[in-house]
Amino acid sequence: MTLRVTFLGTSGAVPTTRRAPSAIMVNREGERFLFDCGEGTQRQMMRFATGFDVDHLLLSHLHGDHVLGIPGLVQTWDFQDREAPLAIHAPPGSRRSLENLIGAMDHNTGFPVRIHEVTPGTVAIDAEEYEIRTFETEHRTTSIGYALVENDRPGRFMREKAEEELGIPPGPAYGRLHEGESVELEDGRIIDSDRVVGPPRPGRSLVYTGDTRPVEATVEVADEPDLLIHDATFDDSEAGRARSTGHATAREAGELAARAGAKRLAMTHISSRYAGNPVSHEREADAAFDGESFVAEDGQTVDVPFPDKE
Amino acid sequence: MTLRVTFLGTSGAVPTTRRAPSAIMVNREGERFLFDCGEGTQRQMMRFATGFDVDHLLLSHLHGDHVLGIPGLVQTWDFQDREAPLAIHAPPGSRRSLENLIGAMDHNTGFPVRIHEVTPGTVAIDAEEYEIRTFETEHRTTSIGYALVENDRPGRFMREKAEEELGIPPGPAYGRLHEGESVELEDGRIIDSDRVVGPPRPGRSLVYTGDTRPVEATVEVADEPDLLIHDATFDDSEAGRARSTGHATAREAGELAARAGAKRLAMTHISSRYAGNPVSHEREADAAFDGESFVAEDGQTVDVPFPDKE
Repeated sequence: MTLRVTFLGTSGAVPTTRRAPSAIMVNREGERFLFDCGEGTQRQMMRFATGFDVDHLLLSHLHGDHVLGIPGLVQTWDFQDREAPLAIHAPPGSRRSLENLIGAMDHNTGFPVRIHEVTPGTVAIDAEEYEIRTFETEHRTTSIGYALVENDRPGRFMREKAEEELGIPPGPAYGRLHEGESVELEDGRIIDSDRVVGPPRPGRSLVYTGDTRPVEATVEVADEPDLLIHDATFDDSEAGRARSTGHATAREAGELAARAGAKRLAMTHISSRYAGNPVSHEREADAAFDGESFVAEDGQTVDVPFPDKE
Repeated sequence: MTLRVTFLGTSGAVPTTRRAPSAIMVNREGERFLFDCGEGTQRQMMRFATGFDVDHLLLSHLHGDHVLGIPGLVQTWDFQDREAPLAIHAPPGSRRSLENLIGAMDHNTGFPVRIHEVTPGTVAIDAEEYEIRTFETEHRTTSIGYALVENDRPGRFMREKAEEELGIPPGPAYGRLHEGESVELEDGRIIDSDRVVGPPRPGRSLVYTGDTRPVEATVEVADEPDLLIHDATFDDSEAGRARSTGHATAREAGELAARAGAKRLAMTHISSRYAGNPVSHEREADAAFDGESFVAEDGQTVDVPFPDKE
């Protein structure tokens, strides 16, 4: 029941010896989602052993530091004789540029690559147990953010109450009750699910903004996300530059996390000017946000627990 | 008087945690030449502190593992406000693909990028003290190799003989004699340069094949090169695969080095199947070549001395 985030690249537009360009691997129970794919992502995947089976590549926008790892990764998949289709989700108007990028060296992929242009505010992936929603962000180009939101899980099954208080004999009825059905017992009684099943328990959720100014849609896309991964290219001393380049400061990321009711805040896309430990980032986010906040590092993994298991 | 080679990427088509895709930095007395530019080259340049001022990018061929680092590097140069022109030398027919690659993300460079298609067998760069020659190689696409060959330097000036034996008074005449001129002394004698200057001393030379089957042109392009950097993707156990994919084995690289009269052999473009120490490569090259041979590693630097100073 894993929801694991591995930060593959946490640099701003220019990488450093310590930070590669943007890429984040999310592994949800064995299914892998790669959010952005900066230059060198394939080697980061090897280095941090995330596994190579990725079905969905989700791009926040098409600036080089978020996409230049795609053609090399695609070619490596080809060398590995990949056959499974790859779905690339990207902002409106991305198709031609992505086709150019992947085909730049006249490379023909041996597996299907399906590019989906996603309208911000819609659901990019609607799966049985979760959905990936998108929201409009504010950068210097068409850009979107993503939220992975799991559906509610059934409430807890109160076995003791079922067995001892209501005298329901253990058996298949327990499973049906847990899944929300009503059951008729041999003695004629009809038991409704909600008598033995607690209220639905929320699933897990995480939000990734990509590069952006602070935007309200980040707050609205998911209810109290367990993890908010937010642009924090600059600290407060460069607030003007953050505005002019379409990025956020650590303080702004902290304020957004507070307004969204996030449990944790991961700051990423750190400008190369903060070469050492970006202590000002942590101080600023702490001042604005009561939850746990941290500057993400390349190779760092974060496990997201269910809200009721923290 | 440096001629320093830094191996930035020594992997085959698929990188590993230890080897990045192909790139080699050559620093000749402060002037930098980048041979090939696989994905991640810019971070390797940072990591191994080669410096970022590169005037000439020389490409052996346009397969992804040799060029996908170009757009990111170009964008970083732009972030650094580079103004100096960049010359890209590449095989015939490369222009459109390179323009697509650099412009894939609608990126407009703020400095001039000049693409030169080079006919194999001609001189790509003709400078005062050296030239960079090209030769045709044999890969699965149009491909060329490069040889950096320094001009001869003047012979040694025999100061003792000039002063004591011939009685030439020290002064400007010494410099003129060393540069090859004849001088007339105050006593009327005419002294020819070759009486006080030894024979011209050879400059340094290195040859880089890029990806290729063993080809005779490698032997012909430079006379007894000080360093031969040769494709050695496979060892002898994969000789058939080397033939079918247009690569060389370590034994073939060693044989070529022997025939070329090279002083040293660096093997590169090592297939990811040789994940640990490619000991078979070293054994095979040793068996075929009496000079020093080694499998290049990422970050390894090799200083090439003048032949008469070894």
